Amino acid sequence: MDLELLSVGTELLLGEIVDTNAAYLAEKLSGLGVNVYHKTTVGDNAARLAAALRTILGRADVVLATGGLGPTEDDITAAAVAEVMGADLVADEAAAERIRSFARQRGLKALDGLLKQARVPRGSIVVTNPVGTAPGFILVRDGKAVIALPGVPAEMKAMAEQTVLPYLGGRVQREGAAVILSRVLRLAGLGESQAEAEIADLLGSRNPTVAPLAKTYEVHLRISARAPDRAAAQAMIAPLEAEIRHRLGEHVFGADEETLEAVAGQMLREAGKTLAVAESCTGGLIGHRITNVPGSSDYLLASLVTYSDQTKIRLLGVPAETIATHGAVSAETAQAMAEGVRKACGADIGLSVTGIAGPTGATAPKPVGLTYVGIADGETSRVEEHRLRGDRPMVKERAAQMALYLLYRRLKGAA
Amino acid sequence: MDLELLSVGTELLLGEIVDTNAAYLAEKLSGLGVNVYHKTTVGDNAARLAAALRTILGRADVVLATGGLGPTEDDITAAAVAEVMGADLVADEAAAERIRSFARQRGLKALDGLLKQARVPRGSIVVTNPVGTAPGFILVRDGKAVIALPGVPAEMKAMAEQTVLPYLGGRVQREGAAVILSRVLRLAGLGESQAEAEIADLLGSRNPTVAPLAKTYEVHLRISARAPDRAAAQAMIAPLEAEIRHRLGEHVFGADEETLEAVAGQMLREAGKTLAVAESCTGGLIGHRITNVPGSSDYLLASLVTYSDQTKIRLLGVPAETIATHGAVSAETAQAMAEGVRKACGADIGLSVTGIAGPTGATAPKPVGLTYVGIADGETSRVEEHRLRGDRPMVKERAAQMALYLLYRRLKGAA
Repeated sequence: MDLELLSVGTELLLGEIVDTNAAYLAEKLSGLGVNVYHKTTVGDNAARLAAALRTILGRADVVLATGGLGPTEDDITAAAVAEVMGADLVADEAAAERIRSFARQRGLKALDGLLKQARVPRGSIVVTNPVGTAPGFILVRDGKAVIALPGVPAEMKAMAEQTVLPYLGGRVQREGAAVILSRVLRLAGLGESQAEAEIADLLGSRNPTVAPLAKTYEVHLRISARAPDRAAAQAMIAPLEAEIRHRLGEHVFGADEETLEAVAGQMLREAGKTLAVAESCTGGLIGHRITNVPGSSDYLLASLVTYSDQTKIRLLGVPAETIATHGAVSAETAQAMAEGVRKACGADIGLSVTGIAGPTGATAPKPVGLTYVGIADGETSRVEEHRLRGDRPMVKERAAQMALYLLYRRLKGAA
Repeated sequence: MDLELLSVGTELLLGEIVDTNAAYLAEKLSGLGVNVYHKTTVGDNAARLAAALRTILGRADVVLATGGLGPTEDDITAAAVAEVMGADLVADEAAAERIRSFARQRGLKALDGLLKQARVPRGSIVVTNPVGTAPGFILVRDGKAVIALPGVPAEMKAMAEQTVLPYLGGRVQREGAAVILSRVLRLAGLGESQAEAEIADLLGSRNPTVAPLAKTYEVHLRISARAPDRAAAQAMIAPLEAEIRHRLGEHVFGADEETLEAVAGQMLREAGKTLAVAESCTGGLIGHRITNVPGSSDYLLASLVTYSDQTKIRLLGVPAETIATHGAVSAETAQAMAEGVRKACGADIGLSVTGIAGPTGATAPKPVGLTYVGIADGETSRVEEHRLRGDRPMVKERAAQMALYLLYRRLKGAA
């Protein structure tokens, strides 16, 4: 199946937003074995949008369009698809009722714009939007399909995962095409070139393939196999995955959608242990990541972002002399923070981080990126020093990752 | 002048990287007054790349292509442009010499791939690459121009800024075209349709134009003016901006790159006041956002993510009876958290949030999304109730925004 991506929105052509939707969809589609040979972006202009739809439908089986389904006059995707596919627009009653109920809850009066969103081309499969008001749709005519989703990333993703990707996966299966199955191994604690060096001899493999992908703060290894069916592809992936896990040990913390915070959280739950975090340079990012996992209140008691010396002393009980002698960014302070937060919150494990995120705050012996992470469980404690690269946002991201990686290794008995 | 962007690279169609080049170029081009009506992405496939070039040259004056200029066999942009424009490829001696010198410095032996990069279509203006080995080129034939740059963002940007954008700016000026200037007003505390209703009569304006853009948790209004020069465009934008600010009042918290956390932080700094935050459902996101602003340690003392009842009681001094009677997600608890964190940290202002991020934790009277934000400054306190839409990540984002919006209004004397 050949599919083309179509991003709709003048803001994309003005460079006001980066098109992350396209990258997200492209990655998911390649995992399903859908061929994507072109991607097109057009603005909120009816004639150009219709022309782009006609061009794409002339060479591909499916158009997957994002954007232009909102309540304003600039939102013209549904009308353009209806015109090109020779359908008229009709209100979908279920979608309209969801919009009216949404407006009632908020006491909104002006319904016209919102209700416009419920209008879809006649004959469409309506794609429910679980997190917003604009539904999407799938319209099939003469063997060609147009799929339209809103451009807001959270809405697009939810609808793709619930409805569109399963729909396309089913279509690929029915067409009997070869399945391409991918599995992503997620690594922490080593860089892309180190990871490559460990598995250099595996990178030349043609089927399955192994490809490293460097993310902001972790490296992913994607194993992809092409086979007649899913089971055959899985059987090709399994021995390669086992070999990589054997070589990289605890650096492989998870696979596919498993985040480091979810893996560590599950280990805490299984061990029946509670956690308290003391953050400084990460500013709350560790707590934010841990609490992105549903049910994290089962093990996270608190994350205390002590951003001043005074609050480190007052809330965590870090001795003032420790800060005066060694500095707030030091192994000694990190250790006192980990022990202090554990006691202050009555937790089993205390985790801490203190560092210099920049651009200010550095001194000659303490450069931007110098970071200490610490852990304490009442019996033993451990502190690690890292020198992290990057600007302020990147140092925050990497420092949070190093702290979570230390927690994960401690829970594995590896640190 | 009509220009189209063409991104070349199979990695873009597999979603392995996000196309930030296109957003960067689109923004710079719109500032020059260049019209960009389409953007196309194709993989490393000679036939599809040539077809895309022919399609684009059929409707636009200029193609600006990025990617496919590297040393490998997959890098086919120069050959495809030469074919479509009826030119042959010739080695540019200056570029070849730079590559040989680069290789000598690094002791590289295998030069064939690198030297391939020096081959450009005959008659091109060569665009020097100050940070890498692959040069770019500008080829003009019969009134149409093809510009090709490497895909590595740092190389592309340096070459665009040094050569390509000045070249295009000069062309635009010679053609007597206009400058397009944009200003983005950033709104909090009201949705896209509410914002539109307030300025409905302004949305029809043709020059300057006003367009609403819905972000995850705020609405932006973009004012764009087309004029002979920058000063004239600014003079057209100013009265419209004043009118919108007059109508929307404190909902307009900033413009262009100003975030709510940066605006509120600057107000704290100017007032000489310190802040402490007590977070629950946001999990650290408020602290993370505040500390994304360099220098935020001047006013942020701490953000305490009290994720359990016990830590709310122990660290913030929320009375156990308040939680027992009203629940952890209640106006009473939010108020006690704001007052408690202020005292616990010795801050001037305490800000709090407590809510139900979901998917679990909801009860019949307290649905997912129910959120209370509170503020206390030792004299007065205020709590607001919000019912936020979305899944767990979205409720966290929106709850953080509501808390920061309350802080901003209090600092403005408007809450």
